[in-house]
Amino acid sequence: MTEESDSRVLTLDRVLDAPRAAIWRCWTEPELLKRWFCPPPVVVAHAEIDLRVGGGSVVVMRGPVGNEMPASGVYLEIVPEERLVFTDAFAPGWRPSEAPFMVGSIDLMDEAGGTRYIARARHWSDADRERHEEMGFHEGWGIAASQLETLAQSL
Amino acid sequence: MTEESDSRVLTLDRVLDAPRAAIWRCWTEPELLKRWFCPPPVVVAHAEIDLRVGGGSVVVMRGPVGNEMPASGVYLEIVPEERLVFTDAFAPGWRPSEAPFMVGSIDLMDEAGGTRYIARARHWSDADRERHEEMGFHEGWGIAASQLETLAQSL
Repeated sequence: MTEESDSRVLTLDRVLDAPRAAIWRCWTEPELLKRWFCPPPVVVAHAEIDLRVGGGSVVVMRGPVGNEMPASGVYLEIVPEERLVFTDAFAPGWRPSEAPFMVGSIDLMDEAGGTRYIARARHWSDADRERHEEMGFHEGWGIAASQLETLAQSL
Repeated sequence: MTEESDSRVLTLDRVLDAPRAAIWRCWTEPELLKRWFCPPPVVVAHAEIDLRVGGGSVVVMRGPVGNEMPASGVYLEIVPEERLVFTDAFAPGWRPSEAPFMVGSIDLMDEAGGTRYIARARHWSDADRERHEEMGFHEGWGIAASQLETLAQSL
């Protein structure tokens, strides 16, 4: 099945006015990630990144009433400054997680005016893709991408 | 959660009277894999192995009445002659598959008398672990391990 015909994929495709290397840093350095990853009023309370294939990431988001939402996963593919692929389907040690939801990926390419930034969320089911869309994938990832652009420009 | 307390894992732990390098070849060369992978009367009709992290494997098993059972997945971790980890949760390109069932792993260690061979199947749910057990995990993987041992000894 080609991706175009795969109804389980959500895609954000933008050109960001920032260099590839800076965008990569924002995705892979916890202290930077905390500054752009969540649309307000949600903030990142804590972030850990073990940047190896099979290594884990933990991002704890905190909502306006103090509710914490931990999200964790592992990296599947790491091509510095080009591609990052991760999923919540495993804990480190390739242990199946409780509820696999998606495979996320970021692709970065040089383009006139900056960097083409393609963020994808691939789901195991149409229902999960739909749920993700209703949770505000496009708005949320769009706002986060703008915050990422601003931060990357400043590095 | 430690593995010992994880009810979703099935494990086969044996010492095989064959060298690690030969066992590795039997798992990673399609023409060898075809000769041991299935307990009779099932045979492997076709095998493809793209031995890279994210690369795909396809094994088509054929039953006694000619029914074909394709199984495909991707490799997650490859440590030559030591560890192989794979899952049916993705197709190549990290695309989520239709029905993730398990993460399989093989660990090989030198041990007096040959090679300690630990095969694990980790599942996303207790129900899948149970189903796998009922499908004959222990008998099937046990017979296959004996066939693997015989073949590896002959290499």
